[in-house]
Amino acid sequence: MSVHLPKGTRDHLPEMMSKRIHVVDAMKRVFVRYGFEPLETPAFERIETLMGKYGDEGEQLIYKILKRGKGGDLGEVDLALRYDLTVPLARVIAMNPALKMPFKRYQTQPVWRADRPQKGRFREFVQCDVDTLGTSSMLADAECLAVLHDCLVELGFSAFTIRLNHRGLLRAIVDAAGLSDLETTVLIAVDKLDKIGREGVDRELAGFGISSDAIEKLWSMFSLRGEGALDEIASSLGDSGAAAIADLRELVAYALAMGVSPERLQFDPVLARGLGYYTGPVFEAEVVEPKIGSIAGGGRYDGLVGVFSKRDVPAVGVSLGLDRVVTVMEELGLLPERLSGSTVLVAVYSEELKSEAVRVATALRTGGVPTTMVLDRVGKLGKQFKGAHSAGIPWVAVVGPDDKESGLISLKEMSTGTQFSLTIAEVLEKLKG
Amino acid sequence: MSVHLPKGTRDHLPEMMSKRIHVVDAMKRVFVRYGFEPLETPAFERIETLMGKYGDEGEQLIYKILKRGKGGDLGEVDLALRYDLTVPLARVIAMNPALKMPFKRYQTQPVWRADRPQKGRFREFVQCDVDTLGTSSMLADAECLAVLHDCLVELGFSAFTIRLNHRGLLRAIVDAAGLSDLETTVLIAVDKLDKIGREGVDRELAGFGISSDAIEKLWSMFSLRGEGALDEIASSLGDSGAAAIADLRELVAYALAMGVSPERLQFDPVLARGLGYYTGPVFEAEVVEPKIGSIAGGGRYDGLVGVFSKRDVPAVGVSLGLDRVVTVMEELGLLPERLSGSTVLVAVYSEELKSEAVRVATALRTGGVPTTMVLDRVGKLGKQFKGAHSAGIPWVAVVGPDDKESGLISLKEMSTGTQFSLTIAEVLEKLKG
Repeated sequence: MSVHLPKGTRDHLPEMMSKRIHVVDAMKRVFVRYGFEPLETPAFERIETLMGKYGDEGEQLIYKILKRGKGGDLGEVDLALRYDLTVPLARVIAMNPALKMPFKRYQTQPVWRADRPQKGRFREFVQCDVDTLGTSSMLADAECLAVLHDCLVELGFSAFTIRLNHRGLLRAIVDAAGLSDLETTVLIAVDKLDKIGREGVDRELAGFGISSDAIEKLWSMFSLRGEGALDEIASSLGDSGAAAIADLRELVAYALAMGVSPERLQFDPVLARGLGYYTGPVFEAEVVEPKIGSIAGGGRYDGLVGVFSKRDVPAVGVSLGLDRVVTVMEELGLLPERLSGSTVLVAVYSEELKSEAVRVATALRTGGVPTTMVLDRVGKLGKQFKGAHSAGIPWVAVVGPDDKESGLISLKEMSTGTQFSLTIAEVLEKLKG
Repeated sequence: MSVHLPKGTRDHLPEMMSKRIHVVDAMKRVFVRYGFEPLETPAFERIETLMGKYGDEGEQLIYKILKRGKGGDLGEVDLALRYDLTVPLARVIAMNPALKMPFKRYQTQPVWRADRPQKGRFREFVQCDVDTLGTSSMLADAECLAVLHDCLVELGFSAFTIRLNHRGLLRAIVDAAGLSDLETTVLIAVDKLDKIGREGVDRELAGFGISSDAIEKLWSMFSLRGEGALDEIASSLGDSGAAAIADLRELVAYALAMGVSPERLQFDPVLARGLGYYTGPVFEAEVVEPKIGSIAGGGRYDGLVGVFSKRDVPAVGVSLGLDRVVTVMEELGLLPERLSGSTVLVAVYSEELKSEAVRVATALRTGGVPTTMVLDRVGKLGKQFKGAHSAGIPWVAVVGPDDKESGLISLKEMSTGTQFSLTIAEVLEKLKG
């Protein structure tokens, strides 16, 4: 019988797991520092909770679960695997009106999308999200930016940029070009700038019957970058962009006060973050190398909770993609060497002395030292030491006949080859120090 | 629009999450102490990987996923949510022949069963498993027993028992009663002893045409308990039970040497652990109160990996049910009070002094102190302090006009009401100490 994994999924063996745990723990430290608290939601939602939230393209990628019993025999579905952590969060807020606002939560759980697998992109991947709900203050948006920035710094990234824009500004630019009715069309085309270049975008826009004058007007603002770009757009737009520009200025001032590096923050008037639920500031982080697209992003989505309840709950959040982050860190050499889970291997000298090995292992474990003991039929001692070496276990302890006589333990440091003859208390002290 | 959770599932809000994290972390500490290393597998498997492993009853509880695209329109399925962590583990071993043996892994991930929801039993629940593969040594079985024992002790349980049996012994008892051909029938009936009592079991056995002599013969061994039970069964069975009894004696001796309390270990010749993949020792833990059934269990399953590959890989493991453990701990008052994620709330004195609050919050976060800051439109200071109190945040820091003048920060300890006037360095020292 041949066995396979489902397409686009992976097992995470101990070596990779130790790296993933390193990365997630680093992010969680940042999340907690900013006062976010943990939340988990079920892997699947009722199908009506997810439908109509991700656009047609997104919806096709949702994994649907067959009804149990008769309905399933007829091909009926009632549940679906979550596609992101944001829609489930909005549902949680809608269902728990007593939650104290602002509600700040972090959530690190897998999501599933039946996407075409490619580099750093899988069908099961873990999102690490923080969101703040119940406040419109740009302080909340700034905290999300700062969390994103601090996570990447904490993980050891140096060359990265966070691009920043505002959905209200995008709308004002499209309006100013006289294209209010074609906002979605324009944004879909412009969103492809990175992939198809300006010429390609222009061809698409012209294909929708947009005049070259209007296209020119769009680019007069869309192509602005760097220092002064925001001022220039502000003066071009006048009142129509004023609220969005005020948001952005406040957000940037707060973010810088929170320690976000100004060189890493770039205003990008084209950034749209898809056509989903965003309503205010949007932002996206990418590393300079390797070219893998964005590794994190977020923004304000004031309307989403309202889809599930009558309450108006403003919200902002950021999502880091664990699998992409790990892929990039691996390429950049930012991941730690695998550390073995165990500090010491307890070897077995002979069948007769096995009970001594159990006694030593038990004492070490009781003392809190991660301990592996040789379980198999007793082989040569040298082979057992080699096993410790190849597993990256730094110490080996063994009780031989002489040790048993003297009541001591032989302890070897694998990196230096140094041998010690110690009491169990001394071994514990050495291994815990 | 009304919103609901899928039946049998729950959201874990921050208060519950902090408790679940407390429990999982305690278990992981034990797992690591025994040299187990982390593994994660995808939430879904190819459907053929899961089918035929859990018996007819189990199979009906599996969540099946519709094919994407055309096959799905026809109601075809190709994937299924994992039902336990053991079958996916066996698949991992089969697919990775280069893994060093013995392979010891822990895995804490959710599984899904479309079971009838009841107390402490949900359709999504987290299993916390350790397994050792590639060795037949009873040391490995003893480590699993010791891990189970130590986890329950570490979590604060005092009144619990671990029942222990051996599938080979069950078989020998059934054989001795002349019922070899009816082994499955007998075990299904006997497995219900807790629910329907001995009379009920006897009625079922008689219903299958089993003679009262044979039933009497079964109970002559099945009803033995306590000191000497194993010896009595050994002498009744003679050679046919010898290997299983030798396993059990070796296992118990090792487990006691590893610190398992002898009072908590009970030989129970009726324990079968269902009809699944077990082949050797089986064990199950239950708490004396509340009566909720088993909260953990495991055993040896030497044949399962062979289903996926030609290699013969012996295996033993134990699984703790996080959701049941948490349910029981909650009833017994063993869960810690909720600790707020944040050490300090930074209050905002006035709109003008908001930037001072940002400065203080940033300094505290940079210093590693979990810090929540007031984000909303500035309300009365008293209300902000009350918010800290109800959120369980132990300290509040604020910069008022006088503080700004003197360059100091007002810090209040919420439990005592004591106020301090300190530099940022002094605040950091106090909050980190």
